[in-house]
Amino acid sequence: MIGVLPETETFLPQLGERLEAVARRFEHQLQSDLPCVTMLVRHVERYRGKMLRPTLVIASGLAVRGSAPANPSVDDALDALGAVVEMIHMATLVHDDVLDEADMRRGGDTVNSLRGNETAVMLGDFLIASSFHLCSTIGEPWLNSELGAMTMQLCSGEVLQLSHRGDLTLTQDTYFEIIRRKTGVLSGACCQLAARLSGASLKVADSLRLYGEELGMAFQIQDDVLDLVGDEQTVGKTLGIDLRKGKLTLPLVVHLARCTPESRARTVQAIDAGEAGTLLRLMAATDALGAARTHALSLVASAKARLEVLPPSGPRQLLALMADATVERAF
Amino acid sequence: MIGVLPETETFLPQLGERLEAVARRFEHQLQSDLPCVTMLVRHVERYRGKMLRPTLVIASGLAVRGSAPANPSVDDALDALGAVVEMIHMATLVHDDVLDEADMRRGGDTVNSLRGNETAVMLGDFLIASSFHLCSTIGEPWLNSELGAMTMQLCSGEVLQLSHRGDLTLTQDTYFEIIRRKTGVLSGACCQLAARLSGASLKVADSLRLYGEELGMAFQIQDDVLDLVGDEQTVGKTLGIDLRKGKLTLPLVVHLARCTPESRARTVQAIDAGEAGTLLRLMAATDALGAARTHALSLVASAKARLEVLPPSGPRQLLALMADATVERAF
Repeated sequence: MIGVLPETETFLPQLGERLEAVARRFEHQLQSDLPCVTMLVRHVERYRGKMLRPTLVIASGLAVRGSAPANPSVDDALDALGAVVEMIHMATLVHDDVLDEADMRRGGDTVNSLRGNETAVMLGDFLIASSFHLCSTIGEPWLNSELGAMTMQLCSGEVLQLSHRGDLTLTQDTYFEIIRRKTGVLSGACCQLAARLSGASLKVADSLRLYGEELGMAFQIQDDVLDLVGDEQTVGKTLGIDLRKGKLTLPLVVHLARCTPESRARTVQAIDAGEAGTLLRLMAATDALGAARTHALSLVASAKARLEVLPPSGPRQLLALMADATVERAF
Repeated sequence: MIGVLPETETFLPQLGERLEAVARRFEHQLQSDLPCVTMLVRHVERYRGKMLRPTLVIASGLAVRGSAPANPSVDDALDALGAVVEMIHMATLVHDDVLDEADMRRGGDTVNSLRGNETAVMLGDFLIASSFHLCSTIGEPWLNSELGAMTMQLCSGEVLQLSHRGDLTLTQDTYFEIIRRKTGVLSGACCQLAARLSGASLKVADSLRLYGEELGMAFQIQDDVLDLVGDEQTVGKTLGIDLRKGKLTLPLVVHLARCTPESRARTVQAIDAGEAGTLLRLMAATDALGAARTHALSLVASAKARLEVLPPSGPRQLLALMADATVERAF
């Protein structure tokens, strides 16, 4: 990660406190009178990990506030919004594990592998319902409408991806539309809604939405790229899972668009036969990985430029660092 | 069905018009810019069937209004609420089909059998998000909070049922708690929220909530009873599916609570061996079916008594008829 400016260092302890407040809201909202529900929720809380989305909420809210005095009711609304978006994110993880038939998530067993797909589907639904309920307690009715519309987009992105399963004619445009909906709209909403809660103008809130969308998309592309980096055996395995589920990644989409008809035929053969090594050699010839990386870097540059609507501050610098981090990470 | 009074007959054409308005709101809300989403939604609209829950909404709203003049904005809110609850119900059907690995629903293929569990999970999520979004456009923020809390209860009921899968020590109390949450709270909310939208006092709205809960629970028990009525081969098949999924029905819960230790051992054997005939003969000895029927009838009687808080009217009579119909139906 690049150097951290003094403003950001001063801001980090404050961010840590706020994320703890978000975690408390999260846990409080998911309390149930039924022990079987509480047990499942406890298990899924271990998925929480980096709290990327609540961090976007808190940093966006504070970046908009700038040097204005703190407003406890806005802070409270931001903490609740942080818990709301984390719940939505967690619901998508639980349902994605059903979709991917995954057995492990962040070093722990997945709900579906432990308790069956049925329980995982219901737990995801419980998380979605809980997030909408928590959102309705913030006292800003427009938030419910925005959250509902955003979640519809998110689900439609998953449906769009599933409808192109194994589709080797997938265009770059459709690929970008899928990842914008699947990943971009949630991180975009984190920034936009936090900005609006903090009194930003519609123009500033919309710039932050675009920042968040582009950051989310860059993150997803970097995931695609990292799937192809490493020793051939590891890459073959990951690639195999993606292809078995019919999921096309950006490097493969770029490669199929760029390659000669002959190379295309050999690529399709290699995909059908699951020959990762051949596939990687064919993709090297079109520099598909390099092109995907360039896409990610260009999204990061655009995202960072969106932040210029904000006054300089520690939280704004953190947002810029987070954009850089999406493409600098190696995991 | 018992005789329909003249007030109810006058009311039926009005109800029909209002249900058409509900269907239009439903279809309008689910329009998507993505053809793949629109196609799935079209398919699932065929599940719609009897529109029982929107009927509860409209009839409760009009029963509360009594002879007061119509208020177009309340009517509009009720139509939207009707579409909201139908969407929630449809989401539970789509996700239940994933849970039950069902291939057919109302004479058509299920989404999961046609397009895979992944798509069915996402379509259900899309329906939930759409219902919350539509609810947020009604302009009554408390509705979102009530709907969120109700949906949390509904999901927790499914989790509770799954956590007692195959549990032959399931008590009647837990059985009733499962069906109250899984089936009762949604029909209860239909009546309660419609009443509140129509200006009912909290006392009247709460009576209607209990009417709806009891009606929903009676409906579920009648489902359990109907699973055991018919020729031995058909019953054996249905019973087999319930037992394979580890789902205990009220007659079986009653039987296990009532039978002698010796009969219990033979019952468990018959369940393990899937011997439906033996099971039915053992259950006849404890009159488990009769006891379940009595429970359903007593819930219906209680539900109808809840309606006495309302002035007599066609809509109120329809609500009473609907309660009777839950136990009189043979399908």
